[in-house]
Parts: sequence; C-alpha cells; structure tokens
Amino acid sequence: MITNLHPKLTNGLNDYPEVNDFSGGTLQCLCESNKVEVKIDAQTLHNHACGCSKCWKPEGATFSLVAVVPSEKVQVIHNEDKLAIVDETAAIQRHFCKECNAHMFGRIENKDHAFYGLDFVHTELSADKGWSAPQFAAFVSSIIETGTPTSEMGDIRKTLNDLGLPTYDVLSPELMDVISAKAAELNGTLKK
Amino acid sequence: MITNLHPKLTNGLNDYPEVNDFSGGTLQCLCESNKVEVKIDAQTLHNHACGCSKCWKPEGATFSLVAVVPSEKVQVIHNEDKLAIVDETAAIQRHFCKECNAHMFGRIENKDHAFYGLDFVHTELSADKGWSAPQFAAFVSSIIETGTPTSEMGDIRKTLNDLGLPTYDVLSPELMDVISAKAAELNGTLKK
Repeated sequence: MITNLHPKLTNGLNDYPEVNDFSGGTLQCLCESNKVEVKIDAQTLHNHACGCSKCWKPEGATFSLVAVVPSEKVQVIHNEDKLAIVDETAAIQRHFCKECNAHMFGRIENKDHAFYGLDFVHTELSADKGWSAPQFAAFVSSIIETGTPTSEMGDIRKTLNDLGLPTYDVLSPELMDVISAKAAELNGTLKK
Repeated sequence: MITNLHPKLTNGLNDYPEVNDFSGGTLQCLCESNKVEVKIDAQTLHNHACGCSKCWKPEGATFSLVAVVPSEKVQVIHNEDKLAIVDETAAIQRHFCKECNAHMFGRIENKDHAFYGLDFVHTELSADKGWSAPQFAAFVSSIIETGTPTSEMGDIRKTLNDLGLPTYDVLSPELMDVISAKAAELNGTLKK
C-alpha cells in the first residue's frame, strides 16, 4: 500500500466485527482528560471512507471514515463546552473539540437537505465494538487536492476495491439517488 | 429497456463503427433548410452518455450523448447567425440553433477550467461515420431530477453497464482526477 489510507483499514475490515443487536456506544475526543463524550443510541449507517478535504481524519491518513446516525440518537454527555463549529456556513456543521480538534459530530441544520435528520460521526472515536463497517469509498479523486500524487490514484482505487470498498468520486449511487430525489421533490419533478 | 436512453444506444454501440484514421466531419443542425454547419477537423474524445439536465438531448431521450474535441478544431462554416448561447453564465457556453434548438457546440471560456481548450459536441448531428463510441455514462443519478422514476434507476444502471458503459454519478474517474489535479494546481498542492 503506497499511502496510509486510514489506520482502521490496515487490517482489512477486521476492526469491524459483527456484533448482534449492537445498539450504539460512546464517542470520546482525543484529549487526555476532560474528554468530550457523545452518546449514540443506535447502530450507524452508510459508514464509508471519504476523501474530501473537510471530513476529519487522524494524523497522516488520506481518508476519513464517516457514518451517519439519526440526530435524535446523538447526545453530548460530557464537556459540551469544549465544542465549537468548524464552519457555520457549511452544509454539515462539524462540532469539534477545541483542544484536540477531533470532530465529534456533524449536523445538517437545513431542513431541505437530503440528509436532514442525520448526523455524521467517526466511530473510530469509540472503544465500543460492533459499529457498522465501511461499505464504500467516496470523493476519491478529491484526495489529489489534499496532496496525494496523481500517479498513485490507480493503486489507491485498486487497494480500496480489493478491501471490498467500491470507489466513487461522489457518494455511492444509492445516496446520490437520494440527493437527486430530494432535488426533484423540491422542484416538483419527483416520480417514484 | 424501460426508458428510451438515447436513440443511438438502441442498437448497442453498432451505430459507432470503427473507421481507421477517421479525422472528423461536419455537424448539421436539425432545420430543414439553411442548416447551421460546424466542421470538426479531428476525432472526438471521451464520448459518453450524460444524464445532466443541461446537455442537449433528442426528443424523448433520457440521456445526452456528448464528446469533446479541441476548440481549435471546431469551425462554424454555415449560418453562424442562427446561433445563440443558452446561458452565458454557465461553465460551458452552449451554442444552439435558435430555430431547431439543437446544441452545435459547447465552449469553455474560463482559462482556469480543467477542460479549457475543449469543446463539447454531439456527433449524432453528423452523417459521417467513424466518430468515437460512447465509453461511459455520467451524471446518472441526475436523471431523477428530470423526471425519471427512482424505481427505474437499478434497471437503467444495469442496462447501461450491459451496453459496456460503466455508470457514474459525476464524470469518469479519469476525468474527475483531471478536475481535481487542476484544483490542486490552482491551490498549489499538486503532486504528480
């Protein structure tokens, strides 16, 4: 592997054992003490590797790993005062720890957004086992913009595919169809 | 096939015979007389089906078929006065015939655009045989926004794949990498 895709992908998907009836856990920020804690009362959906420049990633990783969960299942239970929003004008308002910079959850406040009602979370911040495994890789071409050499792109797509993660330069077809259906709903052209 | 993808795709790719040393031809608009004619002195590249709402398509077709060619190889040779630009603020300035509405060529005027120097053309407007065949399908999810039922998307992607056209919800990985490399070049992060 040429590039450090993400620490949680170095053992294939072995860091994601299936746990029956898994129903959530707690995310902790990276601070040594006074950790921000976020309780999630549900299994995550649509976990994926994301190559965009905005999603939080661990030091040295090329991709982020990010999943969604209903916003109503997400609750900050400790040290909420350490949180701030990266960019209030972004579609996803990413709440991060001002001390360690880990992104604890991303929330969509625009009710017309296709993914309104879902929060974006990084389950690698949890010690609990059973979170849903990554299913695909999104915004792959975007890693060129954050410094990945163009000459490595073929190998990187192949490595991701070999891991069982189909590669897309936007989101997966399933999610892109949801986005287009929302746009169609808003402009009155939606047919089911 | 549920939907009329495009008339030129109903016979597979048989409408695209390989012609050795093919070096271009002439596009004609759909008017019965005083046709706009555009001479193209090169073979086209990256021909593909496009599901976006802006590319010109024949009546009833779900997809456009569109290819690129160096702008310097494109010349309007008859009835240029019938041409106008669909939207001067769009990245691609689509020059169309004001009488029959066919798009004769799309040009990028922004020198910082990744595809600056290439014109977008619909070779179905030419009687010449030998133009490059479609290679992939782009912006597939976008057809939902122009009225394709969401329930047909699985079949449509399968039909396109069976035709030998891999489906993407943006452009192909090759072209998306070119776009990201241009963005990286502009922000000083490009590595080759």
